[in-house]
Amino acid sequence: MLARMIRSRKKARTQEATPLLYADTQHSADQLYFGNVSVPDPFVAIGPAGRKIAVVSALEYSRVVKESDFEVVLPLETLRAEARRRFPRSDGGPAGVIRVLAARYGITCFRIPYAFPAGLAFALRKAGVRLEVAAGALFPERAHKSDSEAAEIRKANRVAAAGFRRVEQILAESVARRGRLYWCEAALTSERAREEIGKVCLERNALASGTIVAGGDQACDPHCRGSGPLRPNELIIVDIFPRLDGSGYHGDMTRTYLKGRPTAAQRKLVATVREAHRRAIDRIAPGRSADAIHRDTVRYFEEAGYPTERRDGAHCGFFHGLGHGLGLEVHEAPRLAPNAAPLKRGHVVTVEPGLYYPGLGGCRIEDVVRVGGATGCERLSRHPYRWCYA
Amino acid sequence: MLARMIRSRKKARTQEATPLLYADTQHSADQLYFGNVSVPDPFVAIGPAGRKIAVVSALEYSRVVKESDFEVVLPLETLRAEARRRFPRSDGGPAGVIRVLAARYGITCFRIPYAFPAGLAFALRKAGVRLEVAAGALFPERAHKSDSEAAEIRKANRVAAAGFRRVEQILAESVARRGRLYWCEAALTSERAREEIGKVCLERNALASGTIVAGGDQACDPHCRGSGPLRPNELIIVDIFPRLDGSGYHGDMTRTYLKGRPTAAQRKLVATVREAHRRAIDRIAPGRSADAIHRDTVRYFEEAGYPTERRDGAHCGFFHGLGHGLGLEVHEAPRLAPNAAPLKRGHVVTVEPGLYYPGLGGCRIEDVVRVGGATGCERLSRHPYRWCYA
Repeated sequence: MLARMIRSRKKARTQEATPLLYADTQHSADQLYFGNVSVPDPFVAIGPAGRKIAVVSALEYSRVVKESDFEVVLPLETLRAEARRRFPRSDGGPAGVIRVLAARYGITCFRIPYAFPAGLAFALRKAGVRLEVAAGALFPERAHKSDSEAAEIRKANRVAAAGFRRVEQILAESVARRGRLYWCEAALTSERAREEIGKVCLERNALASGTIVAGGDQACDPHCRGSGPLRPNELIIVDIFPRLDGSGYHGDMTRTYLKGRPTAAQRKLVATVREAHRRAIDRIAPGRSADAIHRDTVRYFEEAGYPTERRDGAHCGFFHGLGHGLGLEVHEAPRLAPNAAPLKRGHVVTVEPGLYYPGLGGCRIEDVVRVGGATGCERLSRHPYRWCYA
Repeated sequence: MLARMIRSRKKARTQEATPLLYADTQHSADQLYFGNVSVPDPFVAIGPAGRKIAVVSALEYSRVVKESDFEVVLPLETLRAEARRRFPRSDGGPAGVIRVLAARYGITCFRIPYAFPAGLAFALRKAGVRLEVAAGALFPERAHKSDSEAAEIRKANRVAAAGFRRVEQILAESVARRGRLYWCEAALTSERAREEIGKVCLERNALASGTIVAGGDQACDPHCRGSGPLRPNELIIVDIFPRLDGSGYHGDMTRTYLKGRPTAAQRKLVATVREAHRRAIDRIAPGRSADAIHRDTVRYFEEAGYPTERRDGAHCGFFHGLGHGLGLEVHEAPRLAPNAAPLKRGHVVTVEPGLYYPGLGGCRIEDVVRVGGATGCERLSRHPYRWCYA
């Protein structure tokens, strides 16, 4: 799944201050990364001197003790009572609990992520608690994937590949009638194809949320999920980014298809995107500028006759980032985009050039690589590029 | 899905300040509620004098113009360029864009949600932008569901009910061998049952994430999703909270099952939870204290011989909230829990008493009601309570 071009925030780092989180693991990948346990309600976690400490309610207590990476798990109810005793004017919410922790562990300053709740941050500052917002990621090490993290991402991409196999089977079996595709005697729609992809992912213990199956001009809005009938002879973009049930790591792959007979213009579009994809992967290596690799792709497209511009108010050409980090979030650091920082060994990124021209259609091809190794990067996704189904 | 007991924040409200959001619609239900369009990357939205204005990138622009409730959609790239011109020391991020909006629309103070990113809030305050954190919900009206919102929740609960029918079919067809359940010649596991529920939801254009299928003592950790073999003669809690693909509204229902022969103790446990569930729904009406309804349930359980206490360090009895608001989030305002505020007409809440005793097992029964109407509340979920499959 593609990300927009965003300026990556500066990567400076304050190691002295103690990391502080208040989030559930559904909304905060940092919280999931830190404790390695899924908790559906927000909870306080801190990391004083490399330790991992969580405060959770009765509802989560035994499970977090059993399943998480937290070395110390404190019962919320007890800390809340202590907060009420020590800070009678506090409201019994997380601010009081955090002040109790600061006193207990002698913490003078907390480092919070950019996305820390402002309501809580203001309450803490008002109570005299020192907070620093992390410049860049709270855990910059999250961008550097270990072998076991890479293995999870590879596994999630195998799930995505199974989704593509299902789509290819459906396209092979479908027939064209009166300008629409039919499969198993029913109209083949984006929704129907998405349902089949979702089932394939469920069978492999992964959840595919937000899958894109968009044909024709729908695919020219790159975040349009696609709806309604799929048609013969038009390009269909399929972007699958399943999340593994167990570990929470994502895969993220895109293929573009066509059922019927492609025009010369469609063939050229797909061949150009495929070549841009190959070139970009070839250029990825530790130390290389992600900014330059993105700009090279734009230039390659321009030279091939595919300018990025506005036509009748609509963006066309290649107007999203070339790629983004992938892990516990579909979009995470680093980015392959204008002004992005150089790549480092261990970064896991998608590579997903795309071209979109209303009238002609859209094409995007996406794979995942880990930066490093003998060839500059290793692929964490594999699936053929056959796109035409007669 | 049950929520922990949390003190609801005060509901005071500042209507004068202009609502300000910076979030994607996956992480922020407020953002989804405000613009009624799904956008996977964070974007700025403001509501000056009742208008709805969004700033989105090229990648989202045409789709948001076409599909959203925003009256004004501004291109991020243009505003960012203006921010760089007007505020040369700004970093080109959302703070500059928000300052441009403040100047353009003459906004002197923004109202932000509790969960607004602290990094951005600090940057804005530093730049002299006045911010007030909303006391309570940013959009308190979100708790009062319209007829069309209630219809969506009802629809999502019909999806959950289809999931229960599938589970019941599986239990009816499964057989017990050597202390385990088998279905279609394979071991029946929590994972297998969850997969089947997920498929049923996908077929109905809904995504079931986090479904709980937990048997025996696993169910005594109420947020444990369940894993491994399901066994005969033990209670199995099934909690399904699917989200509709189109509107994003959730259903949320729980049933408890047993395949085989229940003991007298299991029968009594289930009958007691069922009676508590009935009593709680009977008491729900506009103006009633959610705190009192929760406490009555605790007392009813105690009088029936089911105390809430700690045994060998583990919580047992009824140690979560009786219910929670349901809508674009699985857990939202209001709450049926200690210290919760009185219920109001239009509130949509789950009612989900539960009892958990390691050794005996867990039982929870959950339905959804909308406060108001002739009987005090109307049910937004329907499914039978048959729990025993011989």
